Amino acid sequence: MRSVHFYITYLLCVSLGILSVIFVLYWSFRWRGGFAWDGSTRQFNWHPVLMVTGLVVLYGNAVVLYRIPLTWGQNKNSWKLLHGGLLFLAMLLAILGLCAVFDFHNSNRIPNLYSLHSWLGISTVTLFTAQWMLGLSAFVLPCSPMAFRQLLKPVHVCMGSMIFVLSIASCLTGINEKLIFISEGKTNATQRYSALPPESVFGNTLGVLIAAFGLAVLKILSTQKWQRPEPRCDETTRLLSPEES
Amino acid sequence: MRSVHFYITYLLCVSLGILSVIFVLYWSFRWRGGFAWDGSTRQFNWHPVLMVTGLVVLYGNAVVLYRIPLTWGQNKNSWKLLHGGLLFLAMLLAILGLCAVFDFHNSNRIPNLYSLHSWLGISTVTLFTAQWMLGLSAFVLPCSPMAFRQLLKPVHVCMGSMIFVLSIASCLTGINEKLIFISEGKTNATQRYSALPPESVFGNTLGVLIAAFGLAVLKILSTQKWQRPEPRCDETTRLLSPEES
Repeated sequence: MRSVHFYITYLLCVSLGILSVIFVLYWSFRWRGGFAWDGSTRQFNWHPVLMVTGLVVLYGNAVVLYRIPLTWGQNKNSWKLLHGGLLFLAMLLAILGLCAVFDFHNSNRIPNLYSLHSWLGISTVTLFTAQWMLGLSAFVLPCSPMAFRQLLKPVHVCMGSMIFVLSIASCLTGINEKLIFISEGKTNATQRYSALPPESVFGNTLGVLIAAFGLAVLKILSTQKWQRPEPRCDETTRLLSPEES
Repeated sequence: MRSVHFYITYLLCVSLGILSVIFVLYWSFRWRGGFAWDGSTRQFNWHPVLMVTGLVVLYGNAVVLYRIPLTWGQNKNSWKLLHGGLLFLAMLLAILGLCAVFDFHNSNRIPNLYSLHSWLGISTVTLFTAQWMLGLSAFVLPCSPMAFRQLLKPVHVCMGSMIFVLSIASCLTGINEKLIFISEGKTNATQRYSALPPESVFGNTLGVLIAAFGLAVLKILSTQKWQRPEPRCDETTRLLSPEES
């Protein structure tokens, strides 16, 4: 019964993640002119797509990986590599997403890092990069002492959730900001954000999907009975083994 | 040692909450002309102040109340009443904050509920009101059966955290949106959001404080060893007692 509840929530989480990626791609193709890397607004379009895909959906799926009961009976190392690998891909996409917007701003003489969205976003990616590197050093490199792993694990888990909350907040402020900026260029009143044209409804819906995805991930992370069972004491004392950290 | 760690985090949480309220008040007085209830932008100013105070700071403090070790040895009923009372005050302030912005919009023929911020915000207040009413019926009214209380408690705790995450997201999107709207009216380029004039730096800092407050509250809520100890079995079976639900 415990597993059934988990898998229903997990299925919801995966579905909301996939829907969010489809929505942000469709938004860019349908209303924003698609993609390019030429300093135009079509280059900017990579920013929301890469951030939602990397910082939200891949990140969210990577952090709930250990909660899947199917993985509990198996060697943790393979799942640890998948966890770290997915997060590495998420980090690469996020950094590429930052490059897209910085380069777009510089090409169009728009200042960088002035809005609350950008302050939250840059803090999120910086913390994420630091967390990934520390996680690699502590939990994957075999020379990392077990005492250090045990000390860092709760901090790593807690920081992981906090970075995820910040990434959701960054994305939601970004979508709201983008929809206002789009509206600023419209001379026709019926096309402005306040008249809720189809693009605005679609953008708002993307925000709601991302918020729902975030809540589903946080529900999985915060449910104690869905946590991977702790190893027995004799297992935790095996020095230099990355198995259970 | 466990208590020391808790109280440091709790002190941080309370300090960030107080700072957030001071910042949002100072913002309104220093740059937005103070307060009134006359349909002007001075009426709008009640909206951020009431939302940050009620939906974020009072709400956040109310949900961590049971985690304070000092309360564990005492009768839970008194703390339950304080928890419910603080949340009732938070709900009143949030509803008043909504009235302020709806009335301001209606007076100035600005459409309601079009932005992602407003969609998130109205969902948060609706869920919060439903949660408070269900909480009152289930955990305060003596006629509520113990089986119902035990069934609802994990849902109530989980929903409480989710509503808090949504309230943080609503506030951050709202602050970002407000800073962009203020910028739209500026003809002087050095006063626009992208030039980061003092008001924008201050508003962004308020957003960072609120995000930090949110993370401190979530840290307290998610740390298992800081949870109020569960009652013994013989205590949980006392039907009709609201003591431990």
